[in-house]
Amino acid sequence: MRLRNKPWAKDKIAQNPQYVVPNPEDYKGKWHEAFGNQQPLHIEVGTGKGRFITEMAKAHPDINYIGIELFDSVIVAALDRLIEADLPNLKLLNVNANDLAKYFTKNDVDRVYLNFSDPWPKTRHEKRRLTYKDFLKLYEDIMLDGGEIHFKTDNQGLFEYSLMSFSAYGMLLKFISLDLHKSDFEGNMMTEYEQKFSEQGNRIYRCEVKFQPKSKDNSF
Amino acid sequence: MRLRNKPWAKDKIAQNPQYVVPNPEDYKGKWHEAFGNQQPLHIEVGTGKGRFITEMAKAHPDINYIGIELFDSVIVAALDRLIEADLPNLKLLNVNANDLAKYFTKNDVDRVYLNFSDPWPKTRHEKRRLTYKDFLKLYEDIMLDGGEIHFKTDNQGLFEYSLMSFSAYGMLLKFISLDLHKSDFEGNMMTEYEQKFSEQGNRIYRCEVKFQPKSKDNSF
Repeated sequence: MRLRNKPWAKDKIAQNPQYVVPNPEDYKGKWHEAFGNQQPLHIEVGTGKGRFITEMAKAHPDINYIGIELFDSVIVAALDRLIEADLPNLKLLNVNANDLAKYFTKNDVDRVYLNFSDPWPKTRHEKRRLTYKDFLKLYEDIMLDGGEIHFKTDNQGLFEYSLMSFSAYGMLLKFISLDLHKSDFEGNMMTEYEQKFSEQGNRIYRCEVKFQPKSKDNSF
Repeated sequence: MRLRNKPWAKDKIAQNPQYVVPNPEDYKGKWHEAFGNQQPLHIEVGTGKGRFITEMAKAHPDINYIGIELFDSVIVAALDRLIEADLPNLKLLNVNANDLAKYFTKNDVDRVYLNFSDPWPKTRHEKRRLTYKDFLKLYEDIMLDGGEIHFKTDNQGLFEYSLMSFSAYGMLLKFISLDLHKSDFEGNMMTEYEQKFSEQGNRIYRCEVKFQPKSKDNSF
């Protein structure tokens, strides 16, 4: 994503603490207090301009959502959407995905969404991909047992890599579509990227993968 | 594959016992005797007209190959190739893949190739797909520990299904290409189907998957 400098972004974020949580570390282990209910929590890591998470929150009022985005110049677009929609079940965090363990702990999260994550195609940048094993460990450590990652991308190389990474981690690949928009999958929420890339004729890849109990003597 | 009736096929097969093994059950557990050496054994289940397995046997004289094909009207084309090439490290079996356990036992086989297998797209035919779990069990039971299946197809639905089936069986997905002919994979041997379908502009999907030790308490 091309980043435009938006000097006013930090101020706008600070002025909307009901939407962009200013002190997420305070809710570690008790996110239900931030939402005032006991609904399941789904997070999107790399939420961008927020179209996906906002539409999901509208469509599923019985689920709480948190969109996580590092760049303040990007998250302000998601904030605008959220102000407009005024959804009680959606919050945003302006933090780094590397720091998830500061803000969440075991059993906080039911599902992780990854949408059109940066492919980091160079081998030397493998560790930055959000489906690298260290990130899978981060997600696993904040989720319920058997939690799922729902991942989509138009990047063939990232999708190939991610399927292999999920498998090597011992996850179950429970759903795979190699051409989402030509499949009979229902309920897909398009991201900004997804609309743009699919209009250009690109295939969209999608999978649902599930963490599995680790046994002592397996070789994963 | 369209099957033409070839009434002379059975006779031709019977006349070439050095190529199409007439009594494969006799070699169960001792295939090295059929080849007269201790080389690893790779088998192709559904070998069709035999282009892939013949070219592999030419390229890798240090490996023994067996091509398995049910239809006598098809295997005769593979037999013609083998007579022409006269390869000491390739045999054919005119048997049903369902009966693999009659002809092979644990540790007989190092690798299984599946190429452009019949997709059996209807859900009620799932059990006929060569990547259905019962077939995976058949392969596992005749292979060395950590044996691999190398699979390619142009059928998107079969590839999606197969990745999920491999994963559900607890196999490691160690290599995946979602567009083989545009990848940097080297040493690919084209099958008859592969050439035809890729010339029509179809993508070729390919993966390498590995059996993993089963632990007592896993949930696969």
